[in-house]
Amino acid sequence: MNIEKLKREIALNYSTPAVVIDLDVVERNIARVQALCDKAGVANRPHIKTHKSPVLAALQRKAGASGITCQKLGEAEVMADGGQDDIFISYNLLGEEKMGRLAKLMQRVTMRVAADNPIVVGDLAKAATLAGKPLDVVVECDTGRKRSGVESPADAIAVARAIKEAEGLNFAGFMLYPPEDAMAETQTFLDTATAGVRDMGLEVTVVSSGGTPNLVNLGKIKGATEHRAGTCIFNDRMMLACGAATLEDCALTVYSTVVSRAAPERGILDAGSKTLTVETMPGLDGHGLILDHPQARIPKFSEEHGFLDLSACNERPGVGEVVRIVPNHVCVVCNMVDRYVTVRGDEIVGELPVAARGRLS
Amino acid sequence: MNIEKLKREIALNYSTPAVVIDLDVVERNIARVQALCDKAGVANRPHIKTHKSPVLAALQRKAGASGITCQKLGEAEVMADGGQDDIFISYNLLGEEKMGRLAKLMQRVTMRVAADNPIVVGDLAKAATLAGKPLDVVVECDTGRKRSGVESPADAIAVARAIKEAEGLNFAGFMLYPPEDAMAETQTFLDTATAGVRDMGLEVTVVSSGGTPNLVNLGKIKGATEHRAGTCIFNDRMMLACGAATLEDCALTVYSTVVSRAAPERGILDAGSKTLTVETMPGLDGHGLILDHPQARIPKFSEEHGFLDLSACNERPGVGEVVRIVPNHVCVVCNMVDRYVTVRGDEIVGELPVAARGRLS
Repeated sequence: MNIEKLKREIALNYSTPAVVIDLDVVERNIARVQALCDKAGVANRPHIKTHKSPVLAALQRKAGASGITCQKLGEAEVMADGGQDDIFISYNLLGEEKMGRLAKLMQRVTMRVAADNPIVVGDLAKAATLAGKPLDVVVECDTGRKRSGVESPADAIAVARAIKEAEGLNFAGFMLYPPEDAMAETQTFLDTATAGVRDMGLEVTVVSSGGTPNLVNLGKIKGATEHRAGTCIFNDRMMLACGAATLEDCALTVYSTVVSRAAPERGILDAGSKTLTVETMPGLDGHGLILDHPQARIPKFSEEHGFLDLSACNERPGVGEVVRIVPNHVCVVCNMVDRYVTVRGDEIVGELPVAARGRLS
Repeated sequence: MNIEKLKREIALNYSTPAVVIDLDVVERNIARVQALCDKAGVANRPHIKTHKSPVLAALQRKAGASGITCQKLGEAEVMADGGQDDIFISYNLLGEEKMGRLAKLMQRVTMRVAADNPIVVGDLAKAATLAGKPLDVVVECDTGRKRSGVESPADAIAVARAIKEAEGLNFAGFMLYPPEDAMAETQTFLDTATAGVRDMGLEVTVVSSGGTPNLVNLGKIKGATEHRAGTCIFNDRMMLACGAATLEDCALTVYSTVVSRAAPERGILDAGSKTLTVETMPGLDGHGLILDHPQARIPKFSEEHGFLDLSACNERPGVGEVVRIVPNHVCVVCNMVDRYVTVRGDEIVGELPVAARGRLS
């Protein structure tokens, strides 16, 4: 690998900062996750919120994914435009504007959505009426994150009943996003909710689990039929920290130039919070791993400045040096940019639009 | 003000989350900052990194601004395309790709740039040669932030000498971005550096200070000729916290819908870190001020979920309610979206592109 040549070419052809993905690593990651799902006997329904690219979604489908997951209508619209025909929106959708868009999507592709309350269910029924066809709905269940999702099997059964009674909706099953250490609680929740809806005469055809860190838990939830993971296509420092990836699995790096070295022990990078974001998690030191100078730290950002602490470095980068940074959280970095620069090893391939970026809703 | 009607119309016409600016407040903010600069006898050179809109830059110029400030070439290119003719890039630019773009800009509009080291100065001279015309350069001085900028008057004088000796460059003066409590140190630094460059036969025609919180310090630095402030066009929770703005000065709010209420004391908003970002500062509680429910807290985000703590609320928003959020840091929120929804009071005006968003470099 001639990384120095690649750095020069990227700086010359795309400038810095640049968000670069290695397609060899991307393809390896896609194959690895598909194999994990195949081995566990669950369908792979990758979450495209990370990459936002119909081109990469198509690679995931080609590798064996059963469909894709989106977090919002705008992502689903871009994916449908890009040829995706089986889309799950794992989010409570509501309101007249969104129901109109959902109905239009239903007329083009196979759609499934989630709901955790009767108000959302009521709106989804309107979308089904507008579309003139039935809509599959799963009940989102919260087994510990305290985010969206009903908190108890009783509430799950109540939402399932609302779906059953709504015109045009088809109860399809349950959606889970369990904390990684809550498999037993999740199983109990799921079993109770499943028994309850069966008593109502409903069939559970979908049990969707999620999360890249939960790939290690595949197969542990009895009854799970599919898994939604997003970050695993690129990986990041958070995935390194939780053991879900190795450095070789990190497909995305941000190329950045050192623009200031006003004192011996510090410097400034041209990537700041408007490129890398300030996202972090407990246990992560600083805002990115600099592959070329792993002893360097990025203690803070301003919008276009990355603060470099070089005090622990034996070799310190000078003004003009390009470095490669593995970001803390890759999903939000992709959301900052309109295009990826694509490479294979040390060869530039070209560009890939982050097509669904900027779709706020 | 019929805010409930406005909320319904925005949700119906633009969906949520939506980033909304009130043009009446924007215009008031522009006039207020211009008046502050006029009163202090310094030129107003607003930083467009906040709004990224040539339309708003034109309003600032019409109100009396002498030119604009950009943080990167991509912003300057968009502003030049939009009719701006006098642009200061307050950032160390370097590298062959950027020098080519800088030279092209120099051929179209009046450009000034900053430098804090001889390597950048050397590259800037190449841009001047490419453009076939001289380039004004100011020396960036750091008087306490430890970001970019030379740390001592001696270093400032050395960079000024490098500018003087470089073919095609014209030493124009100094750029400051002083900590708000470092006026005395900044004055000493500036006086020493000024004396040093005068000894060299150089004239100081520009002393550029910066920052919205430093608007209260206008007039305190003797010799300052202009001020660069960005956030003051919209303001945010950080500006409220530091006393640089009142709630009436906050022109930008994010409209967001409550999508889940799985438990009595909590809820979920459809605006998460991909809309509002996780940026914060010491002393700020949570991730935004909800105007409609000021006792509600936003303790954390995931990408498309805003976690709502409603435990202190007497009236708690139900699923479907639209709320308005003043973000913690408005500059990074604007950087997430491709358009603003514009209003005046409770009337929708239309949309305004965030034209320079997505220009990474």
